[in-house]
Amino acid sequence: MSAPAALAAVRAERLHSLLETLAGFGPGENGGMDRQALSEGDLLARAWLIERTQALGCRVWTDGCANLFIRRDGREDLPPVMTGSHIDTQPSGGTLDGCYGVMAGLECLHALEDASIRTRRPIELVVWTNEEGSRFSPGAMGSSAFVEPARLEGYRPNRDAAGVSLGEALDAHARRFPGLPQRAPIAAHAFIELHIEQGPVLEQAGIPLGVVTGIQGVRWYQVRCKGTSAHAGTTPMSMRRDALLLAMTCLPPIDALAERLAGDDKRLTFGRWNVKPNAINTIAGEVVFTLDFRHADPAVLHAFDASLAACLPADTEVECLFSHAPTTFHPAVLDVLEQACDATGLARLPIRSGAFHDAMYLAGHCPTGMLFVPSRAGISHNPLEFTEPAQLEAGTRALAWALVSLAEQP
Amino acid sequence: MSAPAALAAVRAERLHSLLETLAGFGPGENGGMDRQALSEGDLLARAWLIERTQALGCRVWTDGCANLFIRRDGREDLPPVMTGSHIDTQPSGGTLDGCYGVMAGLECLHALEDASIRTRRPIELVVWTNEEGSRFSPGAMGSSAFVEPARLEGYRPNRDAAGVSLGEALDAHARRFPGLPQRAPIAAHAFIELHIEQGPVLEQAGIPLGVVTGIQGVRWYQVRCKGTSAHAGTTPMSMRRDALLLAMTCLPPIDALAERLAGDDKRLTFGRWNVKPNAINTIAGEVVFTLDFRHADPAVLHAFDASLAACLPADTEVECLFSHAPTTFHPAVLDVLEQACDATGLARLPIRSGAFHDAMYLAGHCPTGMLFVPSRAGISHNPLEFTEPAQLEAGTRALAWALVSLAEQP
Repeated sequence: MSAPAALAAVRAERLHSLLETLAGFGPGENGGMDRQALSEGDLLARAWLIERTQALGCRVWTDGCANLFIRRDGREDLPPVMTGSHIDTQPSGGTLDGCYGVMAGLECLHALEDASIRTRRPIELVVWTNEEGSRFSPGAMGSSAFVEPARLEGYRPNRDAAGVSLGEALDAHARRFPGLPQRAPIAAHAFIELHIEQGPVLEQAGIPLGVVTGIQGVRWYQVRCKGTSAHAGTTPMSMRRDALLLAMTCLPPIDALAERLAGDDKRLTFGRWNVKPNAINTIAGEVVFTLDFRHADPAVLHAFDASLAACLPADTEVECLFSHAPTTFHPAVLDVLEQACDATGLARLPIRSGAFHDAMYLAGHCPTGMLFVPSRAGISHNPLEFTEPAQLEAGTRALAWALVSLAEQP
Repeated sequence: MSAPAALAAVRAERLHSLLETLAGFGPGENGGMDRQALSEGDLLARAWLIERTQALGCRVWTDGCANLFIRRDGREDLPPVMTGSHIDTQPSGGTLDGCYGVMAGLECLHALEDASIRTRRPIELVVWTNEEGSRFSPGAMGSSAFVEPARLEGYRPNRDAAGVSLGEALDAHARRFPGLPQRAPIAAHAFIELHIEQGPVLEQAGIPLGVVTGIQGVRWYQVRCKGTSAHAGTTPMSMRRDALLLAMTCLPPIDALAERLAGDDKRLTFGRWNVKPNAINTIAGEVVFTLDFRHADPAVLHAFDASLAACLPADTEVECLFSHAPTTFHPAVLDVLEQACDATGLARLPIRSGAFHDAMYLAGHCPTGMLFVPSRAGISHNPLEFTEPAQLEAGTRALAWALVSLAEQP
């Protein structure tokens, strides 16, 4: 069996060295990263990755959104098994978000080479462009454009804070790597994304591996509460229309609605508050706050949509800012991932992803699944982001097993 | 009796013309004013006022804080009866706040002249510098420095948003009016400030004149609620420390405390909210909000101070930002003001001021009182600020009666 041999060939020291090398491109403050999409740090990291994998005998392509496809050929010219994630970071991000999945995939390519394993199907390590969305909107842009190339024309005019358009940044990428052939999107046999959890569930459960069953759907709403701005000293309570107090009365019914629909699975956040005029001695004339509601069941999300407006008091306006359906990963891929975890001899937990990932778009393209490793204290998008080295190794071993297992499928 | 004669000599058209002329200096947007303290608009208004009152036979002085003292001599050289307010405005203020009290005082000087009344005591119309505090901090600076001149040295280094210090602005004022003599603070027989209510009480009661019994004391507190910033999608509810939800739990006990202490007199406002990181998909890691509590009884304010911290949940920090004791106006002055209102034939209401005024500082210097006229819809600090012309006239008539009555006192 080649899957156990691939698992056994994973070398923790090499994985950590790869992560350390990648972290050298675009370092940020306080030991974190600032390697935003298609920045100079990103281009340097790509150049290193291309050179290193070509030296391993891989072929490398790009596409119209500067995604990188790094192929280790199989015994047959079948649709490949893909794995990967992103190497762009938040402006004050950590060294593992996205990067771990790509470096773990690279370590698997090394392990296959060391163990002299030639899989039936090709294995492709993919670097998806601009997953974070912190330089160019929207996030998960590379995987979105791979799955639906027509979207790219809509993305190209989007500009970063300095006024550079995505189109200009993509053209600069093409000039930087003139020898890199472009490839049109291809069919894939499966996609697996290995990622840090970015939440506290695995750590709190004391379990090192999470088989991700799906990605929650999300609703972002904005609630505008209208009052009358007036002097805090001169206006008796009975004559006030205090928008802040009105906003306070909105929260219990929204919470009750979410609780009724989701129970223990409730994920409800009132994250952004803008109060006008926001002065100590002035009664708020307007309060606009947002709510983020997530759930894995589309029926729950639809019920939330249907009931939200009716549970709010008068003098409020509600507006949907963003909506995304839940993603359910492919049962056959989940099955392989469970076996891969078991092959490491470590415990696994089914878990759903609260955050978006490139796998969300890939799930519409081919059978897809994700593996999580724990995040210390659930911290991510922060220089303090950390996962135990042994857990990073375990995730990579499971990935190697799963890739080979899938790549041997007919 | 000269007080009724002075009342009868007040001319509404002249009052409105004076207000209109003053509004020509430093106009703002939407028909409002932008005449901040010691700005070019303020200096032009002062030049006009000095020239006009000198032409009326008045003598004019200034002092170290650029207050203007415009004296109409009496029959005897006794401490004067003072009246006045301020002519600086908010950056988007109305035409009446402060300005009404000064123009009504000027109209009274005209009325005395027209009626050939020479009061026993001098009458001084005063323009207090920088009451609004919107250009230089703190507000009510001119009256504060008049009452306690040692404070001025502490004020002079304070800078406006453009970096100009108060000291520089005061020096420029002195250069602009080189002929204006400086005068040290003098004793006064009484001070009366006529002002728009800036609240809705008189309008709602349908009563045109308010005799102000005092100014509420105020407490400004800031409450810091500490949580942990985390991803809205990945963090289960049970593992969250949501600073926004923590802040919500603070409001009912604070409200209950204020209600218990103040009952129907409660004035409690949660006006300023700063949420970090204030992102839709991030649980709030910190929320800082302010509360403004006002009351006329020092014992209530002290009880609030003593109980506030104990009623807040864990993980909150409370800090007092500002505190001012209540002001009670002088019974003898209130008595004269009540008679003055009655002399107009119109109804009056005892009212307390929820906002600060220069009279707050003057009350520590000499017997002091205030008169209010209604504000339409309670609106002030806004171009929509408005009082019916007949109400502006009625207030001025009462002021004329009161000034003469006080100025005839031995």
